[in-house]
Amino acid sequence: MRTIVTGGAGFIGSNLARTLEQTDEIRILDNFSTGDPRFLSLNSGKHELIEVDISTAKIDFLAEIMVGFDRVFHIAANADVRGGWSNYRVDLDQNVIATSNIAEAARRSGVKEIIFASTGCVYGDSTIIPTSENEPFPIQTSLYGASKVAAEGILSSYAAQGAFSVTVFRFVSVLGQNYHHGHVVDFVRKLRANPRELAVLGNGTQRKSYIHVKDCVQALIELRSLNSPFEVFNIGHDYFIPVHESANLVIKSMGLAPKILFGTEDRGWIGDNPFTFLDISKAKSFGWSPTISIEESVEQTVQYLLENEWVLSRD
Amino acid sequence: MRTIVTGGAGFIGSNLARTLEQTDEIRILDNFSTGDPRFLSLNSGKHELIEVDISTAKIDFLAEIMVGFDRVFHIAANADVRGGWSNYRVDLDQNVIATSNIAEAARRSGVKEIIFASTGCVYGDSTIIPTSENEPFPIQTSLYGASKVAAEGILSSYAAQGAFSVTVFRFVSVLGQNYHHGHVVDFVRKLRANPRELAVLGNGTQRKSYIHVKDCVQALIELRSLNSPFEVFNIGHDYFIPVHESANLVIKSMGLAPKILFGTEDRGWIGDNPFTFLDISKAKSFGWSPTISIEESVEQTVQYLLENEWVLSRD
Repeated sequence: MRTIVTGGAGFIGSNLARTLEQTDEIRILDNFSTGDPRFLSLNSGKHELIEVDISTAKIDFLAEIMVGFDRVFHIAANADVRGGWSNYRVDLDQNVIATSNIAEAARRSGVKEIIFASTGCVYGDSTIIPTSENEPFPIQTSLYGASKVAAEGILSSYAAQGAFSVTVFRFVSVLGQNYHHGHVVDFVRKLRANPRELAVLGNGTQRKSYIHVKDCVQALIELRSLNSPFEVFNIGHDYFIPVHESANLVIKSMGLAPKILFGTEDRGWIGDNPFTFLDISKAKSFGWSPTISIEESVEQTVQYLLENEWVLSRD
Repeated sequence: MRTIVTGGAGFIGSNLARTLEQTDEIRILDNFSTGDPRFLSLNSGKHELIEVDISTAKIDFLAEIMVGFDRVFHIAANADVRGGWSNYRVDLDQNVIATSNIAEAARRSGVKEIIFASTGCVYGDSTIIPTSENEPFPIQTSLYGASKVAAEGILSSYAAQGAFSVTVFRFVSVLGQNYHHGHVVDFVRKLRANPRELAVLGNGTQRKSYIHVKDCVQALIELRSLNSPFEVFNIGHDYFIPVHESANLVIKSMGLAPKILFGTEDRGWIGDNPFTFLDISKAKSFGWSPTISIEESVEQTVQYLLENEWVLSRD
């Protein structure tokens, strides 16, 4: 199969590309804003890498890139959930406009399938937990979540018009090799700067579920509807852990014993969700299940970061 | 009160401005793409009109326009639900990017309230009818609906961050004075071209609810939550009518007896919803109710169009 991976030099995209290169001819698009060629340790020679910012590229150029390809894994995105006012356009540009460009280019070039990496953040502060795919009409609490809802809506409109089929994956936080952004990086950085103290955003009671990138990639590749042009799957773990336990797992993996300083708020930042736990029974009924525990995922992530100094010292 | 109305020279916006000018000092923003100064028959002299395309304007310029104002009615939008592939960017530009610009400018200028005209199209092809505000997670079937969901999400994110409060109105199709776009205009135009025949999109069984613009304006002005920074109200009628009855109402208002030619599909166009009927019990519990029947709304709209030849001959 001929496959495009956008964001293929990023965290999830590079793991996906590594798996796909065993079977597919792949073309990777990345603007290297947060992706990095070093994440791409592919070796079969069956991939091609094109540097392009899909949020500003001309549609005709993107369409030309896609001609003759069977499917697009659209993974490129701004993934900084905590983006502040200084950067109010980044989700709009990188997640909404970029997705519109991918959709229109795919339609023009005759691509028949788009697989989209969305997020559990689309549910906002859901009061129904675990949260299923047909949760009541969501109220957005972050520009990041709003941008992913927008992107999903654009893709489903194209699917409804028969342009191509779409599978959407709403992920909880993903951990594992090539992880370079999020709370585990933050904890490891802080502990390397000062091994005797760890400041945690929020009071530590926030409950979160996590998934290993290997399980995430399996879901992206394996889960597809056979009879609907638009299908959505929640992807997360069977269970969740509180943030204070996340902190302890990182500390333990690093062999340290710092004092932990918690904040006073029940969430880490404005727009943070104090309890993220997705109902994954739909994905399970389609044959997928998480295989790596949250504890093992955190430990592997810490080891990966400690072995890859350059990731910790980026930006 | 000092009030901004975006799209104030358009259909709903001009009706809203006419009512608001009795109590408020108003500043109207419009790019005159579908709005028209002739819709603005204001006479108190308490309004100001600024020609600006909010989708391309600089944020600082928009913020400057808003300084010292208490609230923004954000009514400006592309309202062509049937937009095709030739114009795939219009909803993204006019509805999503424009709303992002309004939100950011409002935050920077200290505006404390945004009232947003959304649409029942955000529910896609809902299977729960009448459809309530907390309908299961919607699947978008049109770029128009997707763009309004995106705009709602951006606004609710700002509300969640404490920038300003937001009230969202999801309208069914609106009729009445200054109506210039939609099926009633289409029917009247066709019947004036050929009074003996009327071709209708779809098989005529599509069921739709409608609301008179006067009831719509009352809702925009009267309905507000007192204890939530983000509130959503469905606005429509207590009942619905099939499209073949809509056609008959137009025909009767024009005093004609044409042959009606129906299509074969259960919807008028791809992305059309064969059954649109919103649950308006929340708005009613807040004290609002529709006062003008659908039949009277259609008749008044036809009379308005026949008395305003220039509206029929636009674009």
